[in-house]
Amino acid sequence: MGPHPAVAAIRLAVRRVLHDVLTDLAARDLAAHSAHTASGAPSAPARGARPPSEPGRSPLVLVACSGGADSMALASALAFEAPKLGIRAGGVTVDHGLQPGSDLRAAEVVTRLTALRLDPVECVAVHVGREGGPEAAARDARYAALDEVAERHGADAVLLGHTRDDQAETVLLGLARGSGIRSLSGMAAVSGGPGASGRYRRPFLHLDRQTARKACMVQSLPVWDDPHNADPAYTRSRLRHEGLPALEKALGKGVVEALARTAQLSRDDADALDTWAAQAETSVRDEAGLLECAKLYALPPAVRRRVLRRAAIAAGSPAGALFARHIEEVDRLITGWRGQGAINLPGRVEAQRQGGRLVIRQG
Amino acid sequence: MGPHPAVAAIRLAVRRVLHDVLTDLAARDLAAHSAHTASGAPSAPARGARPPSEPGRSPLVLVACSGGADSMALASALAFEAPKLGIRAGGVTVDHGLQPGSDLRAAEVVTRLTALRLDPVECVAVHVGREGGPEAAARDARYAALDEVAERHGADAVLLGHTRDDQAETVLLGLARGSGIRSLSGMAAVSGGPGASGRYRRPFLHLDRQTARKACMVQSLPVWDDPHNADPAYTRSRLRHEGLPALEKALGKGVVEALARTAQLSRDDADALDTWAAQAETSVRDEAGLLECAKLYALPPAVRRRVLRRAAIAAGSPAGALFARHIEEVDRLITGWRGQGAINLPGRVEAQRQGGRLVIRQG
Repeated sequence: MGPHPAVAAIRLAVRRVLHDVLTDLAARDLAAHSAHTASGAPSAPARGARPPSEPGRSPLVLVACSGGADSMALASALAFEAPKLGIRAGGVTVDHGLQPGSDLRAAEVVTRLTALRLDPVECVAVHVGREGGPEAAARDARYAALDEVAERHGADAVLLGHTRDDQAETVLLGLARGSGIRSLSGMAAVSGGPGASGRYRRPFLHLDRQTARKACMVQSLPVWDDPHNADPAYTRSRLRHEGLPALEKALGKGVVEALARTAQLSRDDADALDTWAAQAETSVRDEAGLLECAKLYALPPAVRRRVLRRAAIAAGSPAGALFARHIEEVDRLITGWRGQGAINLPGRVEAQRQGGRLVIRQG
Repeated sequence: MGPHPAVAAIRLAVRRVLHDVLTDLAARDLAAHSAHTASGAPSAPARGARPPSEPGRSPLVLVACSGGADSMALASALAFEAPKLGIRAGGVTVDHGLQPGSDLRAAEVVTRLTALRLDPVECVAVHVGREGGPEAAARDARYAALDEVAERHGADAVLLGHTRDDQAETVLLGLARGSGIRSLSGMAAVSGGPGASGRYRRPFLHLDRQTARKACMVQSLPVWDDPHNADPAYTRSRLRHEGLPALEKALGKGVVEALARTAQLSRDDADALDTWAAQAETSVRDEAGLLECAKLYALPPAVRRRVLRRAAIAAGSPAGALFARHIEEVDRLITGWRGQGAINLPGRVEAQRQGGRLVIRQG
């Protein structure tokens, strides 16, 4: 008799991602080998690239685990699948220090991960600042800690337990910003850490939360519910417990799946338009490198606005402070020219139309 | 003392759109005049183009009015603004025949529009079929009737009372389909009737429903609430009364505005990608007109999937029945080729890979 369907589902999801990791490692080693034989001497590693695996040392994959159902299910599946592929499996839990006793809880998670025979297992305590609000600050601290642990152990990948439900919530949070399709594209299945593209992998992005919970239950894995997840002070928690259920009631049960599919489609669309904008940006500059208004005018609005955004960021405007309304105002220098003065952008950047050219520079 | 701010807001919105209508008419007349003088003889009108306004006849703009607050506010603003611009203002109401007494109600709307000094004013009774569900069937019947009335009176535009709130609901309905950014782009500020691009205009697309209601109240305009708007059997009604309020509670009051902005940005993005796909489609065909797999592979996924969708529709697959999952399956003939057989698409269309070419044709 095979495992319970929920357990089979989480294992399959992890197995697929581990295969991807091995494929990527093989490609990297091959590239390193070619570079070596081509030059006749070891080439300097590309900036930020991880060194090729040492011979005789098997790859290491870590799971980031809060002790909640999603990441405990992920840890159990990694512990089961990794050895069969010759991969070492480890775990890390982050103590955010936001509640009294969080250190004890983190120690308990370490015990549970060790019981799954993960090795190495460690706990990292972080200090959560305040920048960007409590959720963003906790996230920044968490990823910095995970990056550090991954670097220190030379891990080849870090698995994250985000499910399709998390993805749906992320899309709605992006929708609430109203800043376009990039913010609708949710979390990527594969994303980078600093200097290590593709470090983070999300095997459960197409799996629902219910499956992860079920898998924990039938495997008798104790799980911990983060009190933040039910705290209505947090936007994501309100969305999870009130917003999404109401939306499902109005629109039908397929909403979560539809939102997750929207994320994937939006991501691909945003990537394609970014590519187009990058190409267009070089073609709309004159010999002196200035943006020509007539050429900008001829671009589709979606591409033109992306070119303007790129130019503003290149001039020193911080991406996070540059909103759609800023870009729209700069765009009117092109599409609705009636002698406007300079437009002020975040980061003391000014955009100004001068003699058929758009000049964007820091004041 | 000026008008109440709500009345000022609805009038400004209508005035802007009437200016646009006049500008478009002037451009059309100029083009017709140039064609006339260039050829030395009256040129045949382009297929589907309306004839230039007859000299001495002032332009006519109709308002489509259900008797609800949004379209009554629109009717009142049109009645006020049109004469000042030398535009004749008329009104039309559609009797969908879906409730007993709907004919009496439509007659009452005609009386109210006439009281606003609109002329012509008429009521059209339609038969609502069942195709595509009750909401889609009612919409199809309504637009067919509006087109007929506009043609018969030679109207230059038909104004529709959709507000920013309607737009937000439309975006969420599109989101629930999960079929990509085109379905997130909501309603256009300007859209076409058959053979008459730009017939329909939505002056209130950036105005909230509350403003329209307030404008009716302060002008003592009686309004009618469509019972369908509160009937939980209708998806849009559930969304309006339960889904959106819950989402606002979770995400904050700016949700409606963010959804409306998402609509505009998504529309521009979808337009740009459609343009790209149309150009790409010609460049990926070989001399015999067949799609080359290697060239398709080199396109960004978002563009490739649009090219495949265009090709499937061109081969006879009905656009409305062709879902993202169909296109994904065809896409795997390009990106995940392992000798798959033919893929069946709606409308008896088959997609098949043969000797490095993708063949899509009706069976």
